[in-house]
Amino acid sequence: MKALDELVGLLARLPGIGKKSAARMAFAILKADGAYADLLADRIAGLRDRVRFCAACGSYAEGELCEACSSPARDRSVLCVVEQPQDALTIEAAREYHGLYHVLGGLISPLDGVGPETLGLGRLIDRVRELKATEVIVATNPTVEGDTTALYVKRSLEGLGVKVTRLATGIPVGGDLEYADRLTLARSFRGRTSL
Amino acid sequence: MKALDELVGLLARLPGIGKKSAARMAFAILKADGAYADLLADRIAGLRDRVRFCAACGSYAEGELCEACSSPARDRSVLCVVEQPQDALTIEAAREYHGLYHVLGGLISPLDGVGPETLGLGRLIDRVRELKATEVIVATNPTVEGDTTALYVKRSLEGLGVKVTRLATGIPVGGDLEYADRLTLARSFRGRTSL
Repeated sequence: MKALDELVGLLARLPGIGKKSAARMAFAILKADGAYADLLADRIAGLRDRVRFCAACGSYAEGELCEACSSPARDRSVLCVVEQPQDALTIEAAREYHGLYHVLGGLISPLDGVGPETLGLGRLIDRVRELKATEVIVATNPTVEGDTTALYVKRSLEGLGVKVTRLATGIPVGGDLEYADRLTLARSFRGRTSL
Repeated sequence: MKALDELVGLLARLPGIGKKSAARMAFAILKADGAYADLLADRIAGLRDRVRFCAACGSYAEGELCEACSSPARDRSVLCVVEQPQDALTIEAAREYHGLYHVLGGLISPLDGVGPETLGLGRLIDRVRELKATEVIVATNPTVEGDTTALYVKRSLEGLGVKVTRLATGIPVGGDLEYADRLTLARSFRGRTSL
């Protein structure tokens, strides 16, 4: 069945989708009403045309500026530094943060030969000055690359009078001590809070 | 982000795809090259036009007949009875069966008010006669509905001189006794084979 096999092959290239899930998805598309398949195809084809990068912070935007940058309700004195555009959307979904974003577009990775010059931190320094930011929250992943980048961001902003903070690491809510890895457990001890 | 949210909503309607997987898929489509997104959209939109039902057995086909029915290499004296078209493709993927198929299009389900008349077993009887079939393998799922339907198929074919068999039920290969449910374990005892 070439038509099905082709679609299964394409879907299985997506992250987290194996051959079996791809086949189940393809069968569902085949069995759904035609309007669904047409709408899905249209939205996939149009996605890249509709989504651009915010001119101010680099996260995904449908217009010139992203939702955060164009909203008058956001706190313009706080910047949250993320690795990639989708991280900003992930943080938005938690509805906890009300400042602006700054997308680095990558992380420092000495092993891959990626140095700090690729991050374009000059832009971040300019924005901190322009916005007279009081706090920069570094929200890169708690990995070697994310931690290295966070330290570098902190050092680059020294002397600007801005507080630089980092997202807390520890045991996830609803998690279990038994399943926490050693490093996470160690970090949760170091970062313990008073009750 | 309306463009992303819409696509995530559509993808999350597919079986086994939650909000998180759908978002990861949408981001991957956004970050992939444009040719991939266009190809995926095209294959989804065209799937229903390219895939039809085999005029002989009712499974998925790209032409008038499915691959099995149009192949001279298949054993035409054996019919495998399945519930739905995709079951035939699942069995094909195992590369163990070399006969033809017969799609019922449903199962008997007294609780849902679905009786045997909806299965159109007259067509199956006609095919058994035409092909002078020697064996009919009933490959409906080992559920109450699947078992009921299998029994009904067997009864409908009585007197035609055809052997009616059923796929073996038991502990899956690589499975663990500890995790097998009581019914599966009981059936694997009743169906035990000599070593």
